[in-house]
Amino acid sequence: MTQFVDAPGVIDLSWGHPDPALLPVGELAEATASALTRYGPQMLAYGAPAGPPDLIEYVCERLAETDGRAPRADEVVITAGVSQGLDVLATLLLTPGEQVLVDVPTYHLALRILADHPVELKAVASDHDGVLPDSLCAAVSRGRSGGQTVRFLYTIPTFHNPTGRAISLERRRALVEMLIDLDLRVWEDDTYRELAYDAPPPASLWALAPAGLVTRLGSFSKVVSPALRVGFVTADQATAARLAASGLFDSGGGIAHFSACVLAEYALSGRLADHIDGLRAAYARKRQALLTALAPKTDERAHWTTPGGGYFAWLRFPEPIADDKLAAAARRHRVGFLPESRFHLGDGFASSAIRLSFSMYEQSELTEAARRVVGVLDEVHSSRRGSAIA
Amino acid sequence: MTQFVDAPGVIDLSWGHPDPALLPVGELAEATASALTRYGPQMLAYGAPAGPPDLIEYVCERLAETDGRAPRADEVVITAGVSQGLDVLATLLLTPGEQVLVDVPTYHLALRILADHPVELKAVASDHDGVLPDSLCAAVSRGRSGGQTVRFLYTIPTFHNPTGRAISLERRRALVEMLIDLDLRVWEDDTYRELAYDAPPPASLWALAPAGLVTRLGSFSKVVSPALRVGFVTADQATAARLAASGLFDSGGGIAHFSACVLAEYALSGRLADHIDGLRAAYARKRQALLTALAPKTDERAHWTTPGGGYFAWLRFPEPIADDKLAAAARRHRVGFLPESRFHLGDGFASSAIRLSFSMYEQSELTEAARRVVGVLDEVHSSRRGSAIA
Repeated sequence: MTQFVDAPGVIDLSWGHPDPALLPVGELAEATASALTRYGPQMLAYGAPAGPPDLIEYVCERLAETDGRAPRADEVVITAGVSQGLDVLATLLLTPGEQVLVDVPTYHLALRILADHPVELKAVASDHDGVLPDSLCAAVSRGRSGGQTVRFLYTIPTFHNPTGRAISLERRRALVEMLIDLDLRVWEDDTYRELAYDAPPPASLWALAPAGLVTRLGSFSKVVSPALRVGFVTADQATAARLAASGLFDSGGGIAHFSACVLAEYALSGRLADHIDGLRAAYARKRQALLTALAPKTDERAHWTTPGGGYFAWLRFPEPIADDKLAAAARRHRVGFLPESRFHLGDGFASSAIRLSFSMYEQSELTEAARRVVGVLDEVHSSRRGSAIA
Repeated sequence: MTQFVDAPGVIDLSWGHPDPALLPVGELAEATASALTRYGPQMLAYGAPAGPPDLIEYVCERLAETDGRAPRADEVVITAGVSQGLDVLATLLLTPGEQVLVDVPTYHLALRILADHPVELKAVASDHDGVLPDSLCAAVSRGRSGGQTVRFLYTIPTFHNPTGRAISLERRRALVEMLIDLDLRVWEDDTYRELAYDAPPPASLWALAPAGLVTRLGSFSKVVSPALRVGFVTADQATAARLAASGLFDSGGGIAHFSACVLAEYALSGRLADHIDGLRAAYARKRQALLTALAPKTDERAHWTTPGGGYFAWLRFPEPIADDKLAAAARRHRVGFLPESRFHLGDGFASSAIRLSFSMYEQSELTEAARRVVGVLDEVHSSRRGSAIA
């Protein structure tokens, strides 16, 4: 019934899923009942293609608090999540054969969504502070001098999947300047903005850029429930209108009207804001449990930077380790994670890092998972030394 | 908030929307509460990419009763409605530049969904018994002899939108034979199968054809609620697996997990079947109200065949009438409908028919709407005679 299937005895940190215990089951039951009372048959009819006005209003109000600027209502379209938003943007705005740039490592399923469209994906390098300017310029030049259209960069500036990094405000401003110079547009995946554990994240690229340069994809999957399939796009008015005027949104009367009304009820009651506060505290404790247990054990064998938000810690090794060796050791130690290779384009990438999701398990399990990850590192480390001796 | 906006004093038969009074508001409130109790956090988590097993089981069981054969569970994928199913099929299975055939007139928003993809739409003619064999063969030959790939036909065999027709079993069998000969695949829009008012419809093309030839798109929008955005696809196992393995369905954990669980609860409780029985009776009365009021008034000015199901009556004129003339008369008589031109490709098509939706209004309003449609016909008829004299 769910995508995650429990393997007894295994602690699998490869899933970027919320903790089931933090899903607001009772609250959504109440919100649904209350919304159906408030909206009546209008909640079950074909909805406005751009989404329910009440939820759009909430998105505008909330972003006024959590981002650098609030969108106007006509700059927002409700989607069926970030993945569906990205899919429909690719359908409507890309011409076959065009190039889309992605700064790797990046969310592996976004790569799959884009690869399902007839476009060419090109990698751009990044570091702890996001996309590398030289690499970006070079990729655009290379594409365009080859006669290709290079119009979009897909990127995740805030609590990045898989590395957890949030790029600095300074680097964001520099990136926006460069994007203007390059005439390159951005699809900004802003899934994790709400899940900030230490300090609020910098403004989104969307908030910093002139209208039309950036389309931001937001989500309720991580702060309420993935199953509702509700997210949003903030864009310039023309792009928002193009989405709402698509055959898909027009024929469906919006893409998630019922779920979006449930969310509107939950959000506008004020309970969602309290719930997010609770999530921040709970996920910060999970992060702490994992990283505290890893800290004294890893020193020379792996490094990480504590992520300021989101679901992921990124453990870097001093040199690449073959995926099959990592996978075999993980199986033996009954722990799961995703190797860096999954977040790059193409095959044959040698992983120098692994992604550990600390979102789904309890603190005691995360402590135990850290012990097992250390076991994996010990094993691949000693086998490396062994093979060096041999 | 809803797509339909009421204009006071106007009866607008242009919307293929359910009657708000027939939307099961209280029942879905109960089903949601009951489903959240039954499934708990699993209903709010990332779901199985192909959809909740309980809803797939219902689809299989129900089609065993309402169609010529039941699918296996691995031949079913839950979609976010027919429109989203069609969209994702176009994304995953079409190569840019390929031709897709559509037998016109056909559902105008399906044309928009397909036109949002980089393919070429080509019209095939149809009559009261569906796509015309000669026209289909000619279109395939023309495309292929021009070096084009022609792989798909989009068609609505059962209670067709906009004409209401259901093509005969004999013609379905002949069409399947022809499709095999032509090596042409079909996307069968089966939205209205459940809404049969006189007799059960013939088996779907999907049920009649060998595996792999037909993908059928089914919907819960007309029998429960469009806002839930839940439909299904029945296809060969490989096509179903391709859908479930798409980036979109994998990243989202299904495309409508929460709504689909609500529907599963409503359906498996047995209440949906009773609800559908009630809808059939109610929509049959609406059909009767509209057509009875039209019957004695139209004789030489329009003809129709009583639709055996669905939402639409199709009023044919003896000769074309310009859209602007129809629209002006409709405004004066405070009634709405869609002209035939909307269901064809391209501009400049002269309408010889109009689509009247009898789904959304009460019987007394439909009787009044019929009176106003007769007023429109009188007006365009007398103006035609007038212009002939002038």
